[in-house]
Amino acid sequence: MRASRFLFATLRETPNDAEVISHQLMLRAGMIRKLASGLYTWLPMGVRVLNKVEAIVREEMNRAGALETFMPVTQPASLWEESGRYVQYGPELLRFKDRHDNPFVLGPTHEEVITDLARNELKSYKQLPINFYQIQTKFRDEIRPRFGVMRSREFIMKDAYSFHTDQASLQETYDVMYDTYCRIFSRLGLDFRPVQADTGSIGGSGSHEFHVLASSGEDDIAFSTESDYAANIEMAEAILVGERAAATQELKIVDTPNQKTIAEVSAFLGTNSNQSVKALLVQGVADETGQVPVIALFLRGDHELNEIKAEKHPQIAAPLTFATDAQIAALGLTAGFVGPQGLVEKGITVIVDRAASVLSDFVAGANQVDQHATGVNWERDAQYTEVYDLRNVVEGDPSPDGKGTLQIKRGIEVGHIFQLGTKYSEALGCKVLGEDGKPFTVTMGCYGIGVTRVVASAIEQNFDDKGIIWPAAIAPFEIAIVPMNAHKSPRTLEAAEALYAELQAAGYDVLLDDRNERPGVKFSDLELTGIPHRIVIGEKGLDAGTFEYKGRRDAESSNLTKEELLIKIAK
Amino acid sequence: MRASRFLFATLRETPNDAEVISHQLMLRAGMIRKLASGLYTWLPMGVRVLNKVEAIVREEMNRAGALETFMPVTQPASLWEESGRYVQYGPELLRFKDRHDNPFVLGPTHEEVITDLARNELKSYKQLPINFYQIQTKFRDEIRPRFGVMRSREFIMKDAYSFHTDQASLQETYDVMYDTYCRIFSRLGLDFRPVQADTGSIGGSGSHEFHVLASSGEDDIAFSTESDYAANIEMAEAILVGERAAATQELKIVDTPNQKTIAEVSAFLGTNSNQSVKALLVQGVADETGQVPVIALFLRGDHELNEIKAEKHPQIAAPLTFATDAQIAALGLTAGFVGPQGLVEKGITVIVDRAASVLSDFVAGANQVDQHATGVNWERDAQYTEVYDLRNVVEGDPSPDGKGTLQIKRGIEVGHIFQLGTKYSEALGCKVLGEDGKPFTVTMGCYGIGVTRVVASAIEQNFDDKGIIWPAAIAPFEIAIVPMNAHKSPRTLEAAEALYAELQAAGYDVLLDDRNERPGVKFSDLELTGIPHRIVIGEKGLDAGTFEYKGRRDAESSNLTKEELLIKIAK
Repeated sequence: MRASRFLFATLRETPNDAEVISHQLMLRAGMIRKLASGLYTWLPMGVRVLNKVEAIVREEMNRAGALETFMPVTQPASLWEESGRYVQYGPELLRFKDRHDNPFVLGPTHEEVITDLARNELKSYKQLPINFYQIQTKFRDEIRPRFGVMRSREFIMKDAYSFHTDQASLQETYDVMYDTYCRIFSRLGLDFRPVQADTGSIGGSGSHEFHVLASSGEDDIAFSTESDYAANIEMAEAILVGERAAATQELKIVDTPNQKTIAEVSAFLGTNSNQSVKALLVQGVADETGQVPVIALFLRGDHELNEIKAEKHPQIAAPLTFATDAQIAALGLTAGFVGPQGLVEKGITVIVDRAASVLSDFVAGANQVDQHATGVNWERDAQYTEVYDLRNVVEGDPSPDGKGTLQIKRGIEVGHIFQLGTKYSEALGCKVLGEDGKPFTVTMGCYGIGVTRVVASAIEQNFDDKGIIWPAAIAPFEIAIVPMNAHKSPRTLEAAEALYAELQAAGYDVLLDDRNERPGVKFSDLELTGIPHRIVIGEKGLDAGTFEYKGRRDAESSNLTKEELLIKIAK
Repeated sequence: MRASRFLFATLRETPNDAEVISHQLMLRAGMIRKLASGLYTWLPMGVRVLNKVEAIVREEMNRAGALETFMPVTQPASLWEESGRYVQYGPELLRFKDRHDNPFVLGPTHEEVITDLARNELKSYKQLPINFYQIQTKFRDEIRPRFGVMRSREFIMKDAYSFHTDQASLQETYDVMYDTYCRIFSRLGLDFRPVQADTGSIGGSGSHEFHVLASSGEDDIAFSTESDYAANIEMAEAILVGERAAATQELKIVDTPNQKTIAEVSAFLGTNSNQSVKALLVQGVADETGQVPVIALFLRGDHELNEIKAEKHPQIAAPLTFATDAQIAALGLTAGFVGPQGLVEKGITVIVDRAASVLSDFVAGANQVDQHATGVNWERDAQYTEVYDLRNVVEGDPSPDGKGTLQIKRGIEVGHIFQLGTKYSEALGCKVLGEDGKPFTVTMGCYGIGVTRVVASAIEQNFDDKGIIWPAAIAPFEIAIVPMNAHKSPRTLEAAEALYAELQAAGYDVLLDDRNERPGVKFSDLELTGIPHRIVIGEKGLDAGTFEYKGRRDAESSNLTKEELLIKIAK
């Protein structure tokens, strides 16, 4: 590509409304432009990256034996009613009516459509397993779209759906997809981690998320210093460490006027927050009479409640809901000063986090306004109903697999694989005939990659103060050639043209920067847009038989012979 | 691809609701399935074809210097209000509101979005000309979607939009696009014609449609036997031939009880319909007072009115509207028996088609119930206001370029290139700075290809009673290899595997039909799905060192040596 015939829509200033670096750099590098809230047009610079990501995803999905399909963006509402999601999905599902007043949705995902296809097309167990995928536009009516294409309303996904006779077959395809995703993200040049994930409201039995590690990530992921263990923090188990020491202190009630938070109380008493417990009063599952009990959760003062874990407890209502002031008052308790003493005796279920359960001589609320208790000890002073894993892991916790300790990093979710089981096949009646001639409900898996999001996440992971630093596999151009004073020196232009032709013939994606611009402008543009290799051709170099080469991550350029140059680029 | 791992969703029966052959065969060959009215899922067999069409389109657009972009499917209504099309477009434009009650449309086309982009990104004449394209999903809320993907609601288009300093630059890019379209449709293996087209309501100054010739086409196209002239019948000029002969008969009034149509009257009088004129009474353009005049059009009895031509007449209302019974009665005329005699005298504008204007001694209505006049002659018996080209050309008419005569064939419109001029750039204020430093409104062109429709039209042009006959460039697989009795004979399977590997390595797209099915089933499927080359491997052939080869259009198979086979396929 000749730069003079391309659209370099680069910006020197950082746009005001772009919060995250990938959004800023995608705007500045002229990759995208906003059409409306959460809607972006991809400019030529962006499409080149997008197409490369798509090509790698397609190639690896094909290699894995998945069959490409293409489903409509618009979907009849009736299918969503069959699955129950027409109501469940909430306002992110954009609903509309066509000219004949028939209800439709803009597809945020395609489980319903593919399950409808499968129930019509698949007849026999002999056709299984089968894995369909597509690369297609999705729409999610986000209430507050932001971060550019990271959380836009319209986006491109690769979504795949597999159909199986049983769980063992699903597990096999799931494992293939796991490996395929690893290969895809490796080929894309990303530093990523597959992590165990919560299966959430979609249901099903197993799930992994694929995260690109980047400090701007919205998710915390925990992984072992010494093994492959990695999990979304929602899922990472906090192992019980140590045993409870014997009590050494007497329980004392101390005045703590207006000291409600753990930080305030610890500072006031001169204790460490990890020697105290904090109470969280939440709503339990309603009993037969419709009565909603309050359940008391106790965690160590320095730990955070993991809501996902709490919601999984059979006695705790999901979604997690804190007890109201009225409910707390009805129990004779005082918010901010709740301790475990006497609660079980009042008929309250007390669930204690593992780490809190091994404390002794700890600080807790005294169940009186402006008072706390010190020297509290379980069993002697306070009873509990159950010990349970309630907290988020923290750095340094032992890895649940027993190998090493946990580190926590931020990640951007770019892929998700999921064992759906029979959630959709059951709802839509997707059955095939088994070996015994009897119909059975198929087992399903689904596998997504946020294609547009991958582009943004690659930038979040690879940038500096000059701009984007593309992994070579998805750079809009792999190599840029800059002839110096091209408009005055036919010699540099000729040499540039010759090298351009040679590198293109060798299969490289090359940009010849033949624009009538100052070198400084060109260099800035090439750095901003993240081209991995830059070759400058000047009079001096031509005399010396060298090219001025600079890799995008290099601090300095170096003068290389043609042979050295070709070796450098081939790396 | 191994057939055992592919989805062969072939059907033996022709689905009831499929009217045209491409729709029938796309369903039967397992290429598409209906999701809802006008919405189709593309199955793996269909996607393979679609991807090949897209790849050729993309390659040629890139070669032509167009820059790929990707615009949202959902578009803010405000842009459509700016262009005036929010109201004009009618109910095919699907309008909806998002969760914040903001109005949007599902894009049936992207002139507004790209012009908005251009007005923000293009600053100077130095950036022109520039041509942006995308391959993207469109939505048109057809009132009666039909013919499968030929007239669906959701479909894929390649749409391109170019921006220019002036008409000369537009013409240059237009010519490049014309050539590019010819190259694209040639590479796709289609028999097509570029034809002059009407610019319709979109406005602008020049337009060509690209038609795939097929008897099922919805459009009539006229082209010369001896030159490159080709035009949509809407546009083809009917040249005046011959001169009016002198009158030889007296005007006579004859009774023609209940004989209203030209066919009835001609049969009744024993005359030829080309010796009569027929009247069409239409509404004129309203005058200053709002009064709508009736205009009388006269055509030769055997000719058809061309509504597009009529609408272009400055005195005739567009869209063409026939006069009401009340309007006709108010003029003292009788529908079915209207003749030109005395009309001009009544103040009625009489427009005569060129061919009708050279008749003499003709038959016409007598302006009396159940009566016609014979021996009518212009000027002597009937006056007219104007002679005008009002009719559709017919086969045998002279070509408007003076070379040869016209033939008429049916075509399916698969591409359209269009000189938009400043229609959108004016409406949206898309200006850049000129060489003189002053802003000017850019000139635009647009260029569309119906990608999904191309697939259907290729079938309409290439099929027989066994199924589809794909042009090699877009066949889902180029070659099918069928090992005979593969499940019993390891020898044929081994030979098939070896040939499969060899042909794949040579770059062919090969299907190895390893399904556990009878040969008859496989042969039917391969013919139905239109695979160009079929190679059967049997014991006998292996003994003789030959392969049984059959091209999809061949009546008989032939036994070829490996060398002969490779030569055959390479063609």
